Order: sequence, then structure tokens, then C-alpha cells
Amino acid sequence: MTKPDKQFVRAEVSELARFIASALERAGLPAPDAGTVGGLMAEADLQGSDGHGVIRLPQYVKRIRAGGINVRPDIHVVSEHAAMAVLDGDNGMGHLVVSRAVDLAVEKARACGIGWVSTRASNHAGPASLYVRKVLRHDMLGLYFAVGNANHLPPWGGLEMLLSTNPIAVAVPAGTEPPIVLDMATTVAAYGKVKALAKRGQMMPEGWMMDREGQPLLDPARAGEGFLLPIGGYKGYGLALVTGLLAGTLGGGAMGRDVVDFNKDHVTPTNTGQAILALDLKVFRDPAAFKTDVDRLVRDIRGSQRLPGVEHIRLPGEQSNAKREIYAEAGIPIAAALALELDALAAELGIEPLRSMSPAGTGA
Amino acid sequence: MTKPDKQFVRAEVSELARFIASALERAGLPAPDAGTVGGLMAEADLQGSDGHGVIRLPQYVKRIRAGGINVRPDIHVVSEHAAMAVLDGDNGMGHLVVSRAVDLAVEKARACGIGWVSTRASNHAGPASLYVRKVLRHDMLGLYFAVGNANHLPPWGGLEMLLSTNPIAVAVPAGTEPPIVLDMATTVAAYGKVKALAKRGQMMPEGWMMDREGQPLLDPARAGEGFLLPIGGYKGYGLALVTGLLAGTLGGGAMGRDVVDFNKDHVTPTNTGQAILALDLKVFRDPAAFKTDVDRLVRDIRGSQRLPGVEHIRLPGEQSNAKREIYAEAGIPIAAALALELDALAAELGIEPLRSMSPAGTGA
Repeated sequence: MTKPDKQFVRAEVSELARFIASALERAGLPAPDAGTVGGLMAEADLQGSDGHGVIRLPQYVKRIRAGGINVRPDIHVVSEHAAMAVLDGDNGMGHLVVSRAVDLAVEKARACGIGWVSTRASNHAGPASLYVRKVLRHDMLGLYFAVGNANHLPPWGGLEMLLSTNPIAVAVPAGTEPPIVLDMATTVAAYGKVKALAKRGQMMPEGWMMDREGQPLLDPARAGEGFLLPIGGYKGYGLALVTGLLAGTLGGGAMGRDVVDFNKDHVTPTNTGQAILALDLKVFRDPAAFKTDVDRLVRDIRGSQRLPGVEHIRLPGEQSNAKREIYAEAGIPIAAALALELDALAAELGIEPLRSMSPAGTGA
Repeated sequence: MTKPDKQFVRAEVSELARFIASALERAGLPAPDAGTVGGLMAEADLQGSDGHGVIRLPQYVKRIRAGGINVRPDIHVVSEHAAMAVLDGDNGMGHLVVSRAVDLAVEKARACGIGWVSTRASNHAGPASLYVRKVLRHDMLGLYFAVGNANHLPPWGGLEMLLSTNPIAVAVPAGTEPPIVLDMATTVAAYGKVKALAKRGQMMPEGWMMDREGQPLLDPARAGEGFLLPIGGYKGYGLALVTGLLAGTLGGGAMGRDVVDFNKDHVTPTNTGQAILALDLKVFRDPAAFKTDVDRLVRDIRGSQRLPGVEHIRLPGEQSNAKREIYAEAGIPIAAALALELDALAAELGIEPLRSMSPAGTGA
């Protein structure tokens, strides 16, 4: 499907979801589960979270084929109270486990005002924002904490990478304005972004990573020789640590030295932990009044005085909201190198390759 | 009590609490409430949160006397569900309102596994960590979000200070190790720290504040001419924003342009919002197993390989834990300039001045 002289090709979101689902099904997932995961992975690319979308497919397929994922998991509650539950993912695909956790947290929130679900024996589930956006659809606020699937962050002042980028996401509904969706790694850059730059052959800005001698590391191909830096120094380290305790340790998931580097190890169960909190807006305040307040705040921020040289003041989630609209129409850009890799994967699995969009003039 | 040639004097924590309570009672608070607030403010100084302890007393007294605080508030629940409540503080002292919120959140967590309480019509309540430490005493994990009481932070790329430092605190119980207590402003520095440096006549490090031309601002006496900087650039801005939405807007508290600068305005009710979340450890996992995991993680981090020149790797809360022990014995250091101010306040209110400790050789 690719032309090597092009930097990227474009694929329709439905075609991307079809392709991913078809690869996962061929690798062993039941069709409905493959469809769910494919939909969420394509949604990640749709909103520009390109470190967590189809780029992960070869790695997921490798892990599934190596037996590192349970393709027929018994996802079940291991402990429960009125407003909370701990969900054992039975080493199933993280997208399936966290989707179930979201449904359960929403159900709990409907019954008690708020609901918290912790996962254990889960796996990498893609961008945090996908799951708080799911909560949003029920007119609830969502918070999400996760333990990353490889340790890239040492404690502040240290050299041993005992922590992951442990992301935090928060979604807040608005009225006529788009929702506010924060999705951030507790490191300056997420490791997925490093991998995406490596795929594109681009350098990292200074401040993303440091090598073991404390020197800036700029080449993403050398990422294995260094570590990510936390936001705000010791604060980001603290945030990564407590996020990991809430998402991992609290529910019985891996944390610290127990975290499996799923980029290198395709077999050992990761015992990933995530946590989702849903807050049912209507039990706090009149939802219309709340949304009017959020809309006003969004407009106050967007219209406020800017520093010289700044063209726009953005709200968290604004760029992913915009990409969702643009890519839905124009197609999702897939880097040429990645597209070649996907073609090879398709050939290997014996599935129909990813079709790029003809109108963009980049298709086959 | 002060000797101007000394940089600071030392006071016993119980004497500091006595002095604060006595001043607040004279200003109009009922004795039990004055005692509660005095205890919490002295506890702030005890753990080294010197931007939020007795340094705030003159300002609080000024606000109470100006009618900006309701000294006989009817703190009451305005909406409630099994696992959550919104608490109206009726413009009472924030310490009282948040203490009540913590008790209620713990009660809800006992009944439902987790409990969330939002406050509105509350006020400045001192350091966030005090309240998550309260949750900790019930063998629960605590999360706290607050809207700061003055806007010092513009949105990323902006000049208008629409956001406050909006702190986040998280407390996690350990076994034989001290608990992990993160308490962080979403700005590089909290405004209380700026005020503390100003009192001590010291300069700020670069990166704490910026002036309206985008230049570094180092003199804390000129703090009014600039704004605080968020951790991790746009990430800290996003974190401050969603923290404010969760702590303020969700419960009906002030946010954005509605935030009253309580350093300048001593009369207008601040309508401060805070939120506390308690998670009952025992419904998630066996508490002993959880604490063993936390202890092991703490030791792994503390004993891990250090960058050249680094003597200790610290855990969040380690320094405040240490200060609690040291100051409990040696007394709490009070800057000489502040001690003079407190002497003047004592004279003005007609209360017994703060007695410093004789053994330290700095007392009267």
C-alpha cells in the first residue's frame, strides 16, 4: 500500500479498525474481542495518540503468539463493595479489561454517586484518555491512573528505573464547548512518543531523556541507554510514584521492580494495574449549571491575553478533539515505515493489507 | 520574645497551637473551633509547611475582623449519595470545613469502600497534606484537591492569571516504613513559599516565577508583578485546571475569574472548594500484604543506585516526617521578622505573646 517516496499514507478509521481486528483475530482473539480492541486502537490513532495506536499492533501480535496474553480471559471481580471493585483481568488484553472496569465504575457511580474500579492482571490498554472519554458519555467526570508497561523513570536523584511514566487522565464534560480531557504522562514525554519519533527517524528535544551520566539524550534510537525525566523534577517523580501505588499496588498489580518491560519480554504476564474513578455529575450539582460554568471558564481561558508570539491558548484535549474531526474526514496518517511493517505483518498473517485512502493520492 | 540579632526563635508545638488558638478566639472564633484551627496551623509549622502555618495568622485575624469569615458557620450537607456528599462550609474557617469533609469521607468509605466529599463556601485550609494524613489514620488512602485562594498562574501561553496553584495531595499507608505523603502545588513553587522567602528576605530560584514580559522574576517582594510557572509547562497548566474543576466547579466552589485573592481582599467570601477522597484499604486487599508491598517499594527506591553527587533518594513526605520528629523535640523555628509581627499582634489583641523555648538560648 505504501509509496516509499511519501512520508506517510492515510487510512480511514473504519479500515484501520478492520485491519487491526483482523490481525488480532488471526493471532487468536475471539472476533468480538478483536473488534473491541481494534476499535479502541484505531480511536487512539484517530485522536493523534500515535504512540498507542496501530504502531503497537506488531508488538501485541508477537505477545499473543508467544502466549503472553490470555486470549480467552475470565475477567472477574475479586473484591467488591457498594462503590468499588477490584477486577482481575486474567491476563487478557488491557483494552478489554479496562473497558469492563469503566462499565463497572459507571454502574457503581450510578448507584452510589461515585465508583472506583481497580484492575490487576490486566495489560497495556493504550491511551488513558480513551477510558475517561467513555465515562464522559454517561455525563460523568472520569479519572484514570495506570502503571506503565516498562520502567523508564528513576526516582529523583537515582539511576535505577524503578518507575514507569504512569499516566493520569481526567475528563470533564462541558456544555456547548468540547469536553476538557487531560491525558498526561508524569514524565516530560511518554515513552510511546519516543518510539514514534524513532519510527519517524526524528530527534527528541532536550529535556525528554537523560543518559546514565546525566547528559541529555536526543536520539530516540538510543532510548535504551537512558531514562525519561519527570515533570517538575521531584514533583513528577512523586506523582509517578503515587499514581503507581493507586493504579498498581492498591489493586494488587505490579509496581516497581515487578513491572515487566513488555517491549522486551513478550511472555511473562505483566500483571498491569489500572484504576478508574467515575463521578456522577448530577448528584453533585445541576448538570446544566455545571456545564455553563465549564463553558464560561473555557471561553475565559481561550480568550485571555496571550504572551507575545503565542497564537492560541489551548484547553487540554483540544488538539485530540480537533484531530478526531480532521482525521475522520481526511484519514489517519500512518508513517511510511510503519505502513511497510504493517504490510509485512499482513502478509505474514495472511490477512488483507491495510487499504490507504485513494483520494489523498497516496494509495495503491 | 525575639532578639533581632537572631535569624529565628523556636517555639514548642503546643505553645504555638495555644498562641494561635488564643488569637483566633480573641478575634471571634468559639474556643473549640479556635483550638481545632490552632492545632492544625501549628501542625503545619511542625512539618515544615511554613508557608501555611502561623505565618497566615495575621491575615486570618484581619479577615475575621473584617467580617470576611463566618465565625459561627452552619457547616451542612447540601447534596448526598451513598459514597459522596457536597458540604457547604457557610464561609467558616477552611480548616473546620475540610476537617468535617474528611470525617464524612471516611464515614462514606467505611460504608461503601470509597468516599468523596466536595466543599463549597469553604476557605483557605492550610497544607493539603494535613487532610490526607487524617485519612491515613483510619488505614485508608487519601486524595485531596483544592482551589488555591489567589490566582497566580496563567494558562500556558497566556498572561492573565486565571488559575491558582491548585494543590494535590495523596497519602498512602506503609507498614514499618513511614507513610508516603505527596503534597504538591501544580506550580513549580507554591505561593506560600514565595511569601515565606519574602519574609526571610531571600531571593527565589529561577523557574519559580516569570514577569509579564516573560522574563525570570527572582525577588519575592516583586511577586505581585509576575506569575508562577506550572510544572512541566502545559502539563502543569492542565493539571492545575482539572484540579480546580474537581475541587471547585464540581461542588459549586469558585474557579477562574471567580477566585477571590484573599491576600488583598479580606471581606468578600472566597467560596473556596476542596475535595477529599478516602479509599478503604481493607476492601481492596489484605492491608498487611499491601503494606509489605509498600515497604518493599520504599526500600527499593531508597536503596537504589544514585546519580553522582546525590546523597539520599527521598520518598514524598520524608522531609515533613523528619521535621515532625525534629521540631517536636527542638521546637519549631519561627523567623525573627515573623516573631516580631506576632508580638505586635499579641499586643494588639491583648493576649499572652508566643513564648519561645528557653533551652535553645533564643528565648526572652
